[in-house]
Formats: sequence, structure tokens, C-alpha cells
Amino acid sequence: MAPDFPIPTAGAVADSLGLLRERQPLVQCLTNIVVAQWTANVLLATGAAPAMVDNPHEAGVFAGIAGGVLINLGTPYDDTTTGMAAAVASASTSGTPWVLDPVAAGVAEWRTGVALALLESATPRIIRGNASEILALAGGIGGKGVESVDSPEAALDVARTLALRHGTTVAVSGAVDHVTDGHRLVRIANGHPLMTRVTGVGCALGALMAAFSAVLEDGVLAATAATAVLTVAADEAASTVQRPGAFAVALLDELDALSPQLLAANVRLG
Amino acid sequence: MAPDFPIPTAGAVADSLGLLRERQPLVQCLTNIVVAQWTANVLLATGAAPAMVDNPHEAGVFAGIAGGVLINLGTPYDDTTTGMAAAVASASTSGTPWVLDPVAAGVAEWRTGVALALLESATPRIIRGNASEILALAGGIGGKGVESVDSPEAALDVARTLALRHGTTVAVSGAVDHVTDGHRLVRIANGHPLMTRVTGVGCALGALMAAFSAVLEDGVLAATAATAVLTVAADEAASTVQRPGAFAVALLDELDALSPQLLAANVRLG
Amino acid sequence: MAPDFPIPTAGAVADSLGLLRERQPLVQCLTNIVVAQWTANVLLATGAAPAMVDNPHEAGVFAGIAGGVLINLGTPYDDTTTGMAAAVASASTSGTPWVLDPVAAGVAEWRTGVALALLESATPRIIRGNASEILALAGGIGGKGVESVDSPEAALDVARTLALRHGTTVAVSGAVDHVTDGHRLVRIANGHPLMTRVTGVGCALGALMAAFSAVLEDGVLAATAATAVLTVAADEAASTVQRPGAFAVALLDELDALSPQLLAANVRLG
Repeated sequence: MAPDFPIPTAGAVADSLGLLRERQPLVQCLTNIVVAQWTANVLLATGAAPAMVDNPHEAGVFAGIAGGVLINLGTPYDDTTTGMAAAVASASTSGTPWVLDPVAAGVAEWRTGVALALLESATPRIIRGNASEILALAGGIGGKGVESVDSPEAALDVARTLALRHGTTVAVSGAVDHVTDGHRLVRIANGHPLMTRVTGVGCALGALMAAFSAVLEDGVLAATAATAVLTVAADEAASTVQRPGAFAVALLDELDALSPQLLAANVRLG
Repeated sequence: MAPDFPIPTAGAVADSLGLLRERQPLVQCLTNIVVAQWTANVLLATGAAPAMVDNPHEAGVFAGIAGGVLINLGTPYDDTTTGMAAAVASASTSGTPWVLDPVAAGVAEWRTGVALALLESATPRIIRGNASEILALAGGIGGKGVESVDSPEAALDVARTLALRHGTTVAVSGAVDHVTDGHRLVRIANGHPLMTRVTGVGCALGALMAAFSAVLEDGVLAATAATAVLTVAADEAASTVQRPGAFAVALLDELDALSPQLLAANVRLG
Repeated sequence: MAPDFPIPTAGAVADSLGLLRERQPLVQCLTNIVVAQWTANVLLATGAAPAMVDNPHEAGVFAGIAGGVLINLGTPYDDTTTGMAAAVASASTSGTPWVLDPVAAGVAEWRTGVALALLESATPRIIRGNASEILALAGGIGGKGVESVDSPEAALDVARTLALRHGTTVAVSGAVDHVTDGHRLVRIANGHPLMTRVTGVGCALGALMAAFSAVLEDGVLAATAATAVLTVAADEAASTVQRPGAFAVALLDELDALSPQLLAANVRLG
């Protein structure tokens, strides 16, 4: 957000993991029914404390006491989108950083509107998505169509503009991940194709971004650290197993096992 | 549906798996909160692309662009059953094949009515259930009671009549699985008791039937291929592990590893 | 409940597991979206039959035919809390034992009210929670604050009073687990810190208490047996794996493998 934060380094990413483990931030997840368990387990394995409070009666109050909030639109319902609006409003008032993961924005129309309304109502610390989701959120900004779906590079200009417009950080997932606040650009070149063979790896990344946002002020560093942690752990997991069932289990184990030292040594930032 | 499709052979089943992997069909799942993650992971491991779009605002539109739709009544709510009705109506209009899995029909009364209403509103490509669920859907047809619960054989006459009445394919799960459109009858004699020790294996079978329906016109072949793929993979998994936790992981891995050649060699059709 | 039940012994706990496997009770779970699959798999691995019927149309009727009912407030919605009230009313009328797991009571205000209302409407066989949840349910009884969060011992007086007030059994989870009906007190000193690194282990414990309640009249024995089974299996799992992903898989396998003999030999009651 503020251009006076430095460009994230491997050392800063490693320190961030140490800080996360020390603080064990409470991360409120308003996420989808598909990945709720997986997301909680990823957070626990990494060192954060998940709390899946997403009903409209409690979501707002809880966002005032949580360290970070994840808003994930994977399976939005009337009930939970009301909860999301309450959580975002409360997070905004109380200064709790929140992460917007607009799953399937641009493909599913109603939720695209929900995502845009949340984005207009307050400023997330980070917006995380794949290229087509980011393009959908940016709407008329870039004027690019769905032909850009496969290319996070192609979405970069749009991501920069979206970040500047909202004063936020935008993270675009792909074979290479990109993080930008419009001024700085970080590329993270870790990760493995098996990550796309298990549901919810991207959703878990959004949750980790909310966790790192709880302990870091810089959205670019938080998004970079979350991406680095998940993709370096995935590299480790994929070095021992080759199939998706075992990979999902191994990924949790490698998140638990990942040391700041191994992270610093293996992350490929550019 | 049409009696001029041939009886599925091991070769046709193997070719179907190749076709699924080539096309990677988008499978919209309106399923239950218990198995949503598992179902998505089974589809991904096998080679399809899951999309869990089940809210009433988007379910209808999405069914128009999906390759196949699963309607699973495991945990129906007012919200999601409204979504199911919208998805079925849209699928019917746009020609998207859909699969009905009436979980616990006959045991739980309200959902039995939901299932029957969906079935009266449009024709699914496949109805999938265990013997008692199929008997419950058939209602007065067979006049058999719950004493038939354990016997898919006992439900076969009812299944045939139900298939003919609705012009659909009916798949009855059990120790031996049966698939019929009222004219043809296929028995698949693979599978392992561990499949009943993990929640959602039957639900995942329904999702695979929707996936195969997206790439095949013949409902009998689609149901047979899905059953063959899941049960042959289960045989492989059960040959390496003996307990349910490890079995669920291994089943995903074996679905990923399963080649059309291994499938053709190991499927026991009759 | 009745003080004329004996203090549970290792032998009684072992016999209870045998009985559970023999009867395979139907356990209706009204639980949260995070742990629904995990809970079903824990019940299946242990030997019970899960049924996740939680919608308001069916929850009441189903509670009349279930062997036991779990009410878990992890992700309560308007829809499912209405289902919970119906299930509790029906369970109370029909004599089906039910277990109350007031997840995050005291932290989240609305659900604390839901839990208290359920508790006032009927008597659960068992109330299960961590120290702070039990303190929250007890309300003014103990007058203790959140400083007692980490200490099940500190909650014991309150647990005894709560149990006597409602004529129920209260189980307080912690490094050492405690079960009391106000007259008897059982300590179970098994378990491993990895249990806190996987989401839903406590929730699964509540489900197992509902399963054992279905086959045992004594709430103290049911809560003790459930705790013993889960924590002894966890000890076994933690002796072979060290990380949370593998631990969750191994825990299911050890629940499946656990014999009454091993349970009796390894449980540490006090």
C-alpha cells in the first residue's frame, strides 16, 4: 500500500514465518464448504489459529477481535454473504486486515457482484486470485477478455492498476505467482503442478495471506510470505510423493516441518 | 435411454476414461457439506474439473455452461434445494446431462419429496443410489419394503421399471453394482468393503457419473465407466493398505494412477 | 446422572468399545461445515454409523430414530440452529440421548445464547467442551473469567456444579480430560499434543460421546469410553507419525485397528 515498504527479500520472508509461529494469530475464515476443513488444517500446520466464524450474527463482532480475516467466495449463500459484509465492515472499523479471494469471479455473475460490493465498501489488505478472477474484479480497467485466463503475466498490468485504484496489494496465482501494490512487483517461482490437482490449495493460500497480514503491516510482504511458505512446502511435498491424495497429506506435513532457514534457502523471488 | 446403444464392454469403459482425461469436463456439483471436498478431489484425481456452484443465484446459469451436473441430496437445505431446482431446470433446457443421487431417500421424508419433485420436473441422465434409495424413488412401483435394503439384486426389477418409466439409466450400488436402462443390464463386480468405511465414496461415484455423462451420450456406459473406474481404483488401493484413513488417500492416488489399460484388464463386467 | 452407576474402569471402557462395534449405532450429527467429513470418518472408523441430518425439515423426525444425537455449534446458521432445536425436542420426547458441544461458547455471543437455550429446553446426556466453553455455559455459577482458559482443573468445580444443576455429565477436554456427573470424577490421562494441530479432533470426540451414549445408559461411562478410545488411538498414531497431515490419517487407522484389549491395557484412568 505504502511505497515506502521495501521489496521483500528471502530473509524477510523467513523472518515473517518466525513471527507467525511466535504470534499464532487468530484468523477468521469466511470461506467455502468445500475447503473449510483443509483451510483450517493448513493454518494449524503453518502455525496460525483458525476460527471459521461466518454466520451473520457473529461475523462482525468476531472480525473486531480476529488478527486477520479471510473472505473467500467459493460457495457464497445469502446467509454467509451477509456475514461477509458484516465482517468486512467491522474489520474496516477496527483495523483488522482482511483478504479478498473472489473465487470464480467473472464466471459466476452473482458472486462477482458480491465481491465488487465488498471491494467498494472497504479496502482489503490483499486481493488474491488467478488471472481471470483478477481481470473480472478489475472490470473495465484493462479491457482484456477471457483469453487471458491462462496467463498471470497478461493480468499484471491490470493487477497493478487494480492495486493502485484501491490502495491495496494484488496477488495473482499461476505457475509463477506475482504480487504487486502497483509500485513494487514480486515474482515467486516455486510450486508444483500437483497443487492444481488438489482442491483448495489456492483457497488455503488466501487464508495464509490473512494469517501473515495479522502479523505484518506490509501487504506485499504478507502475500509474498504466504505464497513462499505454501509453494516451498509444496516443492518439498512433491519431492517425496507423486500423487494428489498423498500430496495433500504431505503438504500439511511440510508446512508443519518448514523452517525459516529452509524457506529462505529455497524460495525463488524475482 | 435409447436401446440402440451397445452393451458396455471393458474396451468401451477404458476408452471412456481416456476421453474423460482428454476433455476434462466441467462438473457442477450441488452436493452435501460432508463430502464436498472429497468429491472435488475425486473428480480432480480422475481428470475432471469440479465446480461446487450450488447457491440459487448462480446454480441455474452455471448448469447451462457445465458439462455435467450432480444433484446429491446428502444435506439439503432450503437454499441449496432451490439451487438444485434451478440447476435441473437449466440443465434440462440447455441439454446438460444431470445425475440424481437421492441420498437417504426413503429414510428422510422431506428430501424424498425433493428428489421426487426433481425427478418429475425433468429427466436425469442417471439416477444413482443404493437399493433402498432406488426403492424409495420408485415408490409404489415395486411395493417392496425396507427388508430389501441389503440386496441390490432385489431392487433390480424396480430399477428396470423406474428406468423405463423415466427414460433414464438407474445405477444400484452394492457389493456388486448394477446399471440398467430397462433394456440393458450391466453388472460390475469390482470394489472392496473398505469403500463403506469411508464417508462419501457413493457420493463420489455420483459425481463421476456426472463427469462421464459430460463426455458420453449413453447413460449406461457413463454409469458403468464411473463405477468401473472407482471400484477398480478401490481394488488397487485395498491391495496396498488395509485401514480407512490410508484407504481414502490411496483411493485418490489410484484414481490418478489408473490407466485405461489397467482398467480394461481389471474391470469385471457381467 | 444417577449416582448409582459405578466409577468407570478400564474393563468397562473396553467392553463399551466392544458393544459399540456390535451395535453400530446410528449417530445423527448436527455439526459444523469444517469437520462434517472428518466426524463421519471418525465414527465409521470406530464402528458407528453417521447420519448428518441437520436441516429443520428432517432433524426432528430423524432424532426419533437415531441411536444418539450430536449437537455441535461450530458453524451455526439460522437454518441449522432451527434444526438443532427440533432435534433436541424430539430426542427429549423419544428418549434419544444427545450430546451438546458448545464450540466457542463464551467467545462468540450469539451461539452461546443458542447453546444455553438448548440446555434450558432439555437435558443432554453429556455436555462436552474445553475449560472456557464449560465456564461460559455455566455462566454465573463459578464466576471465573477467561484466565481459566488453559486449565481444565480450574473448571472442575464449575463442571461439577453444572452437571448437578442439569442432572447431566460434563466432560472437560484438556491435556488431561475430566468427566464428572457431580458425584463421580474420572480423569483420562492419554492423548498427544498433535491432537490440537488437526482441526476437529474435539468435535469428533463429541460425536463419539453421542455414539457411546447410544449403547450405554451411564453418561459418565459413555464420555469416558469415547475419550479413552480417541486418546488411546491418538497415542498409537503419534507413536508412528510426527506431523499433523499424517497424524489425521493415522488416527482414523488406529481407531479402526483399536481392540478392546489394547484399549484396556493402555488407557490411563484416575
